[in-house]
Amino acid sequence: MAKAKKYRLAQIVERFGGKIEGNAQTPVSQVGTLESAGAQHISFLAHSKYRSQLASTGAGAVIIASADRGLTRLPRIVCDDPYLYFAKVSQLFNPPPKSRPGVHRSAVVERGTRVPASASIGAGAYIGRGVKLGKDVTIGPGCHLGDGVELGAASRLDAHVTIYAGCRLGQRALVHAGAVIGADGFGLALEEGHWSKIPQIGGVLIGDDVEIGANTCIDRGALDDTVVEDGVKLDNLIQVGHNVHIGAHTAIAGCTGIAGSTRIGRHCMIGGAASIVGHLDIADRVVILAAAVVTKSIRKAGTYSGHPAEDSRNWAQHMASLRHVHSLRDRLRGVEQKLTTRENKA
Amino acid sequence: MAKAKKYRLAQIVERFGGKIEGNAQTPVSQVGTLESAGAQHISFLAHSKYRSQLASTGAGAVIIASADRGLTRLPRIVCDDPYLYFAKVSQLFNPPPKSRPGVHRSAVVERGTRVPASASIGAGAYIGRGVKLGKDVTIGPGCHLGDGVELGAASRLDAHVTIYAGCRLGQRALVHAGAVIGADGFGLALEEGHWSKIPQIGGVLIGDDVEIGANTCIDRGALDDTVVEDGVKLDNLIQVGHNVHIGAHTAIAGCTGIAGSTRIGRHCMIGGAASIVGHLDIADRVVILAAAVVTKSIRKAGTYSGHPAEDSRNWAQHMASLRHVHSLRDRLRGVEQKLTTRENKA
Amino acid sequence: MAKAKKYRLAQIVERFGGKIEGNAQTPVSQVGTLESAGAQHISFLAHSKYRSQLASTGAGAVIIASADRGLTRLPRIVCDDPYLYFAKVSQLFNPPPKSRPGVHRSAVVERGTRVPASASIGAGAYIGRGVKLGKDVTIGPGCHLGDGVELGAASRLDAHVTIYAGCRLGQRALVHAGAVIGADGFGLALEEGHWSKIPQIGGVLIGDDVEIGANTCIDRGALDDTVVEDGVKLDNLIQVGHNVHIGAHTAIAGCTGIAGSTRIGRHCMIGGAASIVGHLDIADRVVILAAAVVTKSIRKAGTYSGHPAEDSRNWAQHMASLRHVHSLRDRLRGVEQKLTTRENKA
Repeated sequence: MAKAKKYRLAQIVERFGGKIEGNAQTPVSQVGTLESAGAQHISFLAHSKYRSQLASTGAGAVIIASADRGLTRLPRIVCDDPYLYFAKVSQLFNPPPKSRPGVHRSAVVERGTRVPASASIGAGAYIGRGVKLGKDVTIGPGCHLGDGVELGAASRLDAHVTIYAGCRLGQRALVHAGAVIGADGFGLALEEGHWSKIPQIGGVLIGDDVEIGANTCIDRGALDDTVVEDGVKLDNLIQVGHNVHIGAHTAIAGCTGIAGSTRIGRHCMIGGAASIVGHLDIADRVVILAAAVVTKSIRKAGTYSGHPAEDSRNWAQHMASLRHVHSLRDRLRGVEQKLTTRENKA
Repeated sequence: MAKAKKYRLAQIVERFGGKIEGNAQTPVSQVGTLESAGAQHISFLAHSKYRSQLASTGAGAVIIASADRGLTRLPRIVCDDPYLYFAKVSQLFNPPPKSRPGVHRSAVVERGTRVPASASIGAGAYIGRGVKLGKDVTIGPGCHLGDGVELGAASRLDAHVTIYAGCRLGQRALVHAGAVIGADGFGLALEEGHWSKIPQIGGVLIGDDVEIGANTCIDRGALDDTVVEDGVKLDNLIQVGHNVHIGAHTAIAGCTGIAGSTRIGRHCMIGGAASIVGHLDIADRVVILAAAVVTKSIRKAGTYSGHPAEDSRNWAQHMASLRHVHSLRDRLRGVEQKLTTRENKA
Repeated sequence: MAKAKKYRLAQIVERFGGKIEGNAQTPVSQVGTLESAGAQHISFLAHSKYRSQLASTGAGAVIIASADRGLTRLPRIVCDDPYLYFAKVSQLFNPPPKSRPGVHRSAVVERGTRVPASASIGAGAYIGRGVKLGKDVTIGPGCHLGDGVELGAASRLDAHVTIYAGCRLGQRALVHAGAVIGADGFGLALEEGHWSKIPQIGGVLIGDDVEIGANTCIDRGALDDTVVEDGVKLDNLIQVGHNVHIGAHTAIAGCTGIAGSTRIGRHCMIGGAASIVGHLDIADRVVILAAAVVTKSIRKAGTYSGHPAEDSRNWAQHMASLRHVHSLRDRLRGVEQKLTTRENKA
């Protein structure tokens, strides 16, 4: 995308550590995959299963783990965690786009909202009353910020993001297009077969360094706030119900749904399309695999999967055992026949 | 959110019934959870499992069931259904926000559409030709209403709602941000390995008192209309396929998908992330639990779950029986060995 | 919707083939279902299970397979594939809406972008710099096209579509409201318990004749592009992760999630709410049923379902066998008791 600056391997190692093997003056200006990299790219080997791609890569240099250093003669940076190292090099080459400060002439900013000089407000954006914007925020075209919204410094909202009245996001938020923060939670009481709406008067409180994917929804609380702590990363098309609490540095992949009032711990990793029912408690450092259906609280760290979710080794074993039921039936029938035959003989 | 008016317990009971125990003049101005309520709040105990929270609550008063009335000395309203009672009290304290009538200068209203004086049209909204708007409608910033759309009185669309041409919504509709009503259904015919599009010429017909969640999609019909009857409540990120028919007062939780031409009865409750395949018939008063995969019609009221969905007690039993297969194998092996040993002896 | 022109059966058969039985001069002006059609409609019988509807239809004519031709005395077109034939007739009666060329006064087009005279740019749309638009494109109200986007001739974007910078779509694209193309993929590396963002510098490359449903998301690639080949049809609320590759003429139903770097073959059909984990390879002509959870590569054509997905007949058998585990336990207990009884006798 943006044209990247050129760096020599020596300059990279100076910033991020690691050890160079081969020509330390090799210049690179962008990251690339082993498959498609050219001489100006630095690539990386994250798993030795990709070693055949390494053999044929056109990359000018590679980032590689110590154990794999002998697999190539290319100029290379040897380090402990090539994937993380690559992430940092890519961040160096691809800094977030700078927005030009200013309020687009077609944007609407209501009274009582002060826009910092450093802020960028895109075409057709709508900013309600009493909104508090930090320095260097970027609000994309067509975004909607309701009255009293707070958005911390250096946050960026892409196009068509909706933030309902009173919701608060911390610093360095990154929200992708179409995300909706603070719509009413799904709160209803039955009255003689009709649904009576429970006003959703809580808000949404989002910490620092949170990323929110495209078309993801985070509902406002029924009474107290829905809370997303610092460093949480949410992928696309995720539903976060009212009064959910997501602990710091938890990452959740796309299409996952979390029903109301569930508490998710810190440092969890939740696979795509998982379903977590309401009012549960998920411990810290829990890993939930893709498409798991979590119907009970999870009290200790570990890896869970299945429908209903359980320890993932058990689930795998149970599903494998399904394949044996048929033969068990046949064998049992055999045993029964033998016994019957003997009885008849006796 | 909005500052709430103050009411005495006596005034509340006058409106909604129930019986006061303790000081009937206790003033309250907002609802709150047992955990976070202060003296100005009235809280509620919906399940006796929260009784420990009741013991330590800072609430000024509580709504409580007759059976639990002895659990607190706080001023209290004793009633049959504390959750419903709380809903009504919350509605009293938190009426829906009033929108200021008028058309924002940046909104676009095409010719042939009359905007009632009581209507509020937000910034950047687009209203096509021949649109019929009832009294007191609120159309949020950035909404899109195609030609010939009908929207009943007192309906409210939040930001960025899209309603395609010709779709009709009844009175008191509440549609949250990013919802899309009337996009083409997924209609395709195969022609020598290529897909040929079937024009989607039906519409969407939505009754009164329907709530539609953020980023939820309701497709227009292929030929006849997709129908959502009165009082239906849809949560966020739900997909309603073309020609689906959802019966009155059915509630559907988030991330659920309903494939084309399926008929869902009245007064159903469908849990989050359920999948219902196409061309099925679901009876009235069916409860479908979270993440169920419904592959067959459901002919009678009851509770269903699982993948594929069945009576939820059966599903639970079947999944539990999975855990026994392993030990059955071991026991069967033991039986077989015994028999073999005897045969060898014989 | 649009008022359709009148055609006689003879004129239709002249275009699309088939054989008329009954009055070839019968005029029809629209398609309709057997249930709701009137004399001006032509309907169709796709499955003989709808024969009772055929008996009572008010349609003026029907499209019918050779085997079913005797089921009605109505004027009829007899053909090999009534569903496909109906699709063509419907396309004839319902051509895509023509947009009036021109740029709405409230749209924003940045410098360096040339809008063809034949293009229609809706109210409040935003077109970035250096965007390349083909002839006869329609860009709906409130759409967002980032810098450098390419959109092929005769493509149509409905309201509120977001296309991020640098993404490319081919000719005759049809993108429904709220779709997001080119948001960042979910790329993160762990650094001492915190997530470090991997810049997503790839793009999205979409072929010709691709349809993309409402609120569907297609993420940009991490390094190389995410690719959607010609003729692919995507329903609503689908998540396509970064660097996914979808082969030509594959159709995917709503609520499906495809995790990063998975390759899907050509001519696949993927049911609604399927989950496909990352880094898999799915062969050509694979059919994946609704709600399947695909956790391994699928190397050959066939029909797959279940959680985890396997050959759909096996899955059905396995789930059916679940029902026998309970009775197997009882029978095994019986056998064990018999053996014990004998041992005691012996």
